[in-house]
Formats: sequence, C-alpha cells, structure tokens
Amino acid sequence: MSNNIVEEFNAYRSKMNEKMLADNNKIIKRIFNLDTNAFTEGALSKKTKELLGLGNSLVLRCDDCVRYHLEECYKLGISKEEVVDGMSVSLLIGGTIVIPHLRRAYEYWEALEQNNA
Amino acid sequence: MSNNIVEEFNAYRSKMNEKMLADNNKIIKRIFNLDTNAFTEGALSKKTKELLGLGNSLVLRCDDCVRYHLEECYKLGISKEEVVDGMSVSLLIGGTIVIPHLRRAYEYWEALEQNNA
Amino acid sequence: MSNNIVEEFNAYRSKMNEKMLADNNKIIKRIFNLDTNAFTEGALSKKTKELLGLGNSLVLRCDDCVRYHLEECYKLGISKEEVVDGMSVSLLIGGTIVIPHLRRAYEYWEALEQNNA
Amino acid sequence: MSNNIVEEFNAYRSKMNEKMLADNNKIIKRIFNLDTNAFTEGALSKKTKELLGLGNSLVLRCDDCVRYHLEECYKLGISKEEVVDGMSVSLLIGGTIVIPHLRRAYEYWEALEQNNA
Amino acid sequence: MSNNIVEEFNAYRSKMNEKMLADNNKIIKRIFNLDTNAFTEGALSKKTKELLGLGNSLVLRCDDCVRYHLEECYKLGISKEEVVDGMSVSLLIGGTIVIPHLRRAYEYWEALEQNNA
Amino acid sequence: MSNNIVEEFNAYRSKMNEKMLADNNKIIKRIFNLDTNAFTEGALSKKTKELLGLGNSLVLRCDDCVRYHLEECYKLGISKEEVVDGMSVSLLIGGTIVIPHLRRAYEYWEALEQNNA
Repeated sequence: MSNNIVEEFNAYRSKMNEKMLADNNKIIKRIFNLDTNAFTEGALSKKTKELLGLGNSLVLRCDDCVRYHLEECYKLGISKEEVVDGMSVSLLIGGTIVIPHLRRAYEYWEALEQNNA
Repeated sequence: MSNNIVEEFNAYRSKMNEKMLADNNKIIKRIFNLDTNAFTEGALSKKTKELLGLGNSLVLRCDDCVRYHLEECYKLGISKEEVVDGMSVSLLIGGTIVIPHLRRAYEYWEALEQNNA
Repeated sequence: MSNNIVEEFNAYRSKMNEKMLADNNKIIKRIFNLDTNAFTEGALSKKTKELLGLGNSLVLRCDDCVRYHLEECYKLGISKEEVVDGMSVSLLIGGTIVIPHLRRAYEYWEALEQNNA
Repeated sequence: MSNNIVEEFNAYRSKMNEKMLADNNKIIKRIFNLDTNAFTEGALSKKTKELLGLGNSLVLRCDDCVRYHLEECYKLGISKEEVVDGMSVSLLIGGTIVIPHLRRAYEYWEALEQNNA
Repeated sequence: MSNNIVEEFNAYRSKMNEKMLADNNKIIKRIFNLDTNAFTEGALSKKTKELLGLGNSLVLRCDDCVRYHLEECYKLGISKEEVVDGMSVSLLIGGTIVIPHLRRAYEYWEALEQNNA
Repeated sequence: MSNNIVEEFNAYRSKMNEKMLADNNKIIKRIFNLDTNAFTEGALSKKTKELLGLGNSLVLRCDDCVRYHLEECYKLGISKEEVVDGMSVSLLIGGTIVIPHLRRAYEYWEALEQNNA
C-alpha cells in the first residue's frame, strides 16, 4: 500500500511536468533545465548537493520538494542515518513548524524502502 | 472528472467563508470586505490586479489563493499565455520551490477550461 | 463524520511521532522534549502560551500545527470567541494569504466541538 | 546612546506613516485603521493581543514589527519575564533562524528600559 | 541627501554582481541571465511584468528586490498611483507584516523622484 | 576596513548572546545548547552539516545566520568553490529573491579571507 505514495507522486509529477514543458515558456523551460544541471558533481559531490536540496526544501516546508530529494538521496545510496542527520539540522534551524513535514518525510522514506525491499 | 477540482474548491470555500462571516468578528469581516474592494479598477486595471494577486499568491505558495486568482483571471478573459507569462516571473523570483504549486496551477487552469468547453 | 478529521490527524501524528522518536536522533528527541516543556505554566499562563502557539502557527501557515494548538486550546477550555479573537490578529498581521488556513481552522474547531457534544 | 534606537525607530515610523496615509490609497488607509482596532480589548485582553502581535512578528522575522509590539508591551506594563516567556515559544516554533531577531529584540527592550529609567 | 539611497544601492549592487559573475559559477550566471530575460515584452507587457516583480518582492519582504523593481518601474514611466495601487494589493495579501517594507519603498520612490527632479 | 564586518558581527553576537543566556530562560538556553550540539560529527561530517546550515540559512534569507555559517565553513577549511557550489543550489531553490543575500554572503566571505591574509 505505502508504495502508492511514491508511485502517485511520480506519476502526477511526470504528467504535469510534461504539460508545463509542452507550453514552451522560455523561463519555465530554462529553470527546469537548470534544475537538472544543478545537482551534478561539482566542487561538492552529487550526494552533498542532494542533501542540500533536501535540507533547503525542508526548511522551506515544501512536501513535494522534500519527497523529490528524498528519492534522489535514496537512489544515490545515502543511508537513512545520513538523511535523518541532515534533516535534524533543518528541524533545529526551521523550528517545530517543520515537524509535520518531517513526519511526511519519514513516511515517504519508509515507502521508498518498502518499494525496494 | 477534472471539473470536480473547481467545484469542490468553490463549494468548500463558500461554505467555510459563510461560517467565518456568521461569527461577526470585526477584523475578519473587514478584511473580507477589503478583499472584495482591492481587486477593482483603480490606477491599475482589474486585469493587472488579478495577475498581481496570482503572482503574489504563487511566490507565497498558497495553492488555494492561486486557485482563486486563476479563476478570477479566467473569468476576466485573461489568456493562458498571459497567465503563464506572469507565473514564469513568480517562478524565477520564488525559485524551484514554486514548481509543485505551478503544477497544481496548471491542473486547475485545465479544469477551468474543461468546465467551460 | 467530521470527528474523523480530529481522529485521523491524531492517529497519523501519534504513529509518525513514534517512528521518529524510535530513531534515537538526539536533536529530534530533544526538540520534541522541549516542545512538551515550552507550553507549561511560566511567566505566562499555559492558556496564553497555547494561544501564542496557535497564532504563530497560523501566520506561518502550518495547518497541522494550527490543528494541534486548536486542540490544546479546546482542552484548556479556551472559548471559541477567544480563539477567533486571537486568530483575527494573525489574519491581520499575516494577510489574506492566511484565509485558507483560517477556513481549515474553523472546520477543525467545529469537529472538536462535535466530537465533544 | 541606546535610547536612540527607540527614538530613531519611532521618528522614521511616524514620518513615513504620515506620507503613506497622505496618499489617500483606500486599501492602505483601511489596513492602517484596522491595525489600530485589532489590538483593543475583546474576547482576549489587550495585553494578550500585544503578546500575540509580538510572537507573530517574531516568527515572521520582522524586526520593525517586533520593535513596535515590544514597545506596546512595555507601555502596557508587561514584564520582561512575560515578554521573554512569549518570545521563547516563538523561538521554539520558528527555530534558530529566529535568534538574530531575538538579539535585536533584547537590545530594543533594554533601550526601552533605559529610556524610562 | 535622499538620492544617496539610490546611488548607494546601485553602487553596491553593481560591485557585488560583478564579483559574483566573475566567479564563473554556471548556475549563478544562468540565473542572472534569466533575470535579464524574464522582464521583457511577452504575452504580458514589460510594464505589467515589472509590477509583478515589485509585488512579488514586496510580499516576500525583500527590500533590495523592492528597490530594484521600483527603479525599473520608475524608468518605464509607471506613475506613483499605479505603483501604490499595485503595492496595496501586496499589503492586503501579505498583511501588516509588509508595512515596514512599504515605508522603505515609499522612501526609495521619493528618492527616485528627487534624483530626477 | 572590510574585516570590520566580521569583527562587528561577532562582537554584537557575543554581547547579545551573553545577555540572553544570563536571563536563564530554559527554552532559550536549551535551544542555544542544541545549536552547539547539532553541528558536530555524526552520520554526516561536520563539514557537510555546516554546508547544510549555510544552505538552509540562505533560502530562509537570514543574513546573520548566513554570516555565522560562512565563518564556520571558513574555519573548517571549506574552499570558496565548495561554498559557492552549495550556495548556487540555494539560489536555484530559493529564487532570485535570494540574490541580495548572496551579495552580502560574498562580501562577508571576502572579509573573512582578508582578515586571514
């Protein structure tokens, strides 16, 4: 059941991204393009950058962005301990207002693990 | 099916607004009243003001506010190209954290078009 | 039916809190611990502090946090008039972007009342 | 020296408020008017409402708004212990990102005390 | 005296932008490049887009961004009445927390007018 | 001259932290204590955690928090290229509204380098 969260999120995300990009708005297309380029190996490793993407998304309290970066972290083989260590920094900086998003992050990570068990 | 998004949003919005206003709290009533008065023809056109309402709502990442202003834009005959052009400015200013809200905005606009096809 | 909102929220909240605390991350555990300690009688009364928690949550537009503090306010016997008076301050300070969260706050308060009728 | 913070803030605030209100923009005028009306005795006491104004301003990290409400709290005879108790709730909810604003709040409160010593 | 605000802002802005771009970070360079391209004539006029940039910046409470867009609006010949009408929408949506930024926006606009008197 | 930025920031920070902690408010003291404990070696390295602290602070647009974490990064020997790579992720996620804070971050980093040249 819990893998539905992952599949539903990705299906909706793909479907809507396709519609947005079909629209050929230059700014939107370039920002999507930048997004793909930003999380590549550079002075910092891809792994560190995904952890940054996750942390930034968590303090900004964007559940979908958190889900996306959790999944990228998972695919890169970042461990749950590392992900939770990073999220604890965001909880401290962002305050208890972050807690509901942390709950949903835990739920999504669990679904990722079950999907791949 | 997709017109449900529009109908459900408006039904819930009306029902709850009614309950809030029935409460007779002065501050709440006056702010609702101001809200009706703010988006009228002035130094700027009603159309420009609705686009401003939409853009402000998008960078503040409030899905319901985005939906409300999308619908007002639609009723005023603002084209999809204009709405998307305005939203692209908000995406650039607000960053990729805005993307999930943009997806839902696209979905709502599509539902508005289908409802009126 | 409406008591489902309350029950569902609390069931999910408890289940996920348990999972997070089972993880034994020090920062997360201490912040949860602080959270329990912050809303106790001090220079300000418990009641005033819950109203502060509610108001802060509302301007930060965190629905789950609003729900949590509404429920604490309800349990402390704070009246609807007091809760609405406090929320009207947050609406003014936070702007109309707060309105969708206010709608959901009204809905949750109503569910709390019906659950206890 | 430190009373300059208070005097400078109030002088600038008064001067600019006057200019804004001279402009006769209806929305701006009404919101200023509401602002005066919101912090009056109602279901909640004036004192509780000022504490709410302070807490809301602190989590939204608006230094000038914090200063304004600190001064109102001071004038109402709210003690430093009460103000700090309220601000500690906002620190917990808003996270360590609130700390720099808390530093400036402490500085302003000290200036208020020195001005009136 | 007040034209110093404008000159100081622009001097600092230019100096630091130069340093950032000299760094040759791809993401930063492309976002700066996008920024130049976003506020051009499209489905919406340049004027409407600058008003959107101003409104978005105001609700996000970024003084420097507000200053930048005020200046662009001024250069495009947008009148004070139009600018204030747009900002009143942002005040309503963003709440009284926006007021301190509105004060500084008024001060900057006045400096722009005096510089060009 | 530019080292003044660093010295002034640290002097003010220390002075006000001392005053806040002298107050003996339990919540404030514990959060300060947590802050010291959060950025230590764990599942993630101290270096990665400081980069997370920096990135989180940047998207939340807190200049003082950015300065603090820049200085910690500098002390840990993190290179300018790594810091800029991390900040570029935050710029993309947080949008152009982050740019003014990025300017001030560049200025502070330069001051750190000059102080230690």
